[in-house]
Amino acid sequence: MNSSPKASSPGSFPSGQSVNERLVSLGIELPDPFMPIARYAAFRRSGAIVQLSGQGPILQNGDGIFGKIGRELTLEDGVKASRITALNMLAQANSICEGDLGRIVQWIKITAYVNCTDDFFDQPAVIDGASNLLYEVFGDVGLAARAAVGVNALPMNTPVEIQAEFEVSV
Amino acid sequence: MNSSPKASSPGSFPSGQSVNERLVSLGIELPDPFMPIARYAAFRRSGAIVQLSGQGPILQNGDGIFGKIGRELTLEDGVKASRITALNMLAQANSICEGDLGRIVQWIKITAYVNCTDDFFDQPAVIDGASNLLYEVFGDVGLAARAAVGVNALPMNTPVEIQAEFEVSV
Amino acid sequence: MNSSPKASSPGSFPSGQSVNERLVSLGIELPDPFMPIARYAAFRRSGAIVQLSGQGPILQNGDGIFGKIGRELTLEDGVKASRITALNMLAQANSICEGDLGRIVQWIKITAYVNCTDDFFDQPAVIDGASNLLYEVFGDVGLAARAAVGVNALPMNTPVEIQAEFEVSV
Repeated sequence: MNSSPKASSPGSFPSGQSVNERLVSLGIELPDPFMPIARYAAFRRSGAIVQLSGQGPILQNGDGIFGKIGRELTLEDGVKASRITALNMLAQANSICEGDLGRIVQWIKITAYVNCTDDFFDQPAVIDGASNLLYEVFGDVGLAARAAVGVNALPMNTPVEIQAEFEVSV
Repeated sequence: MNSSPKASSPGSFPSGQSVNERLVSLGIELPDPFMPIARYAAFRRSGAIVQLSGQGPILQNGDGIFGKIGRELTLEDGVKASRITALNMLAQANSICEGDLGRIVQWIKITAYVNCTDDFFDQPAVIDGASNLLYEVFGDVGLAARAAVGVNALPMNTPVEIQAEFEVSV
Repeated sequence: MNSSPKASSPGSFPSGQSVNERLVSLGIELPDPFMPIARYAAFRRSGAIVQLSGQGPILQNGDGIFGKIGRELTLEDGVKASRITALNMLAQANSICEGDLGRIVQWIKITAYVNCTDDFFDQPAVIDGASNLLYEVFGDVGLAARAAVGVNALPMNTPVEIQAEFEVSV
């Protein structure tokens, strides 16, 4: 049985740097995690598997990136939006892991929805903004299975929404 | 490691009322669960985790709610549709649990697709119809991780489709 | 607790034929599995559960089926595209299982995205192309929980993308 490809030791880097130390050395500051404002949960954990609620490119100060890719937003705007979305995913994960992202054994899956025009076909390049951030921070542990699809509308007219699933050591 | 937020004892309420008794006191009558009409399964269970096939706002008598939100349907129509969709989810769950919904330990995740116009951005409010029903019936056990996205078309021109995942005691 | 409906012994048929022998007798030749070209994984496994990255109707020689159903593509084109997509899913699964598809205990879930016009409502019939292939090859083991939704755009303008999850014996 093949295991996940290129699996590295969870939450560590060859240098011995922890994931949270890695964040600091990358100059990445995590935002506060968003709390649900309706009858759902920010996340659910069953055994070692954590499911996050959908995240978007909304900043803590109320700002965010809004609009449709292929119309008022470019591919580059979308890449930036998916990177911010991934930062919000990490903020949730960091809270769940009580400040120790090294507890994440593997990012299992991300499902990414890109708000775009009918003739925009480069959803994968948009979502590379999120995937590259996960790889920068986690190394091979951050290589999740992935699907990226286009949609015609997203909440608050954001350009990107991502659902994520990861495994933690318990 | 943080557990799921506000976890309560599975399938019970402070009053000692069972989930199925709760349904009765809420005046909720479950429809018959829909059976697949093609080569797929109504649900799959692996260990304690159950995955339901996508459900929609179709009534047992063949009626249902049809149309696109933002065009011929309003937000309120969508809320009603997502509540009916959740009733169909409960009907499936009740059948899987052999009439004892108290076996559900937690609703883990719902992924909700809203058939809407390009300029409709309130998918979360539509899906509150389903999330509120889960909370009324299950309390904190019903607070699932959630994603809500817009789409341009759904099967049979229904306005809402929801995929759900829950954990049962085995 | 109800188990999955119509569960058969994993990876075997009454005739004693293995799944891979079945492929041969059906005249099905699996393509080579696609490798990710960005920072994500073709699949992730956690315990017995495998998650595949989204697959589409792309052929190994660079050809594929492209376009939107309801505009330049018909329902029949879509059925063919979803069957090819399922072949790519099987190619990934076969690689993960080191050439023994009989290790698959059950196909748990498929989430299918159909690139279509706003007035196309037969996404389930499109995805029957994939579901029927899974059933031909795996029998009841291939009956996954399923959701099929429409979307306005997919990567490379493909008409179908499918995310799949299955359980393996470990």
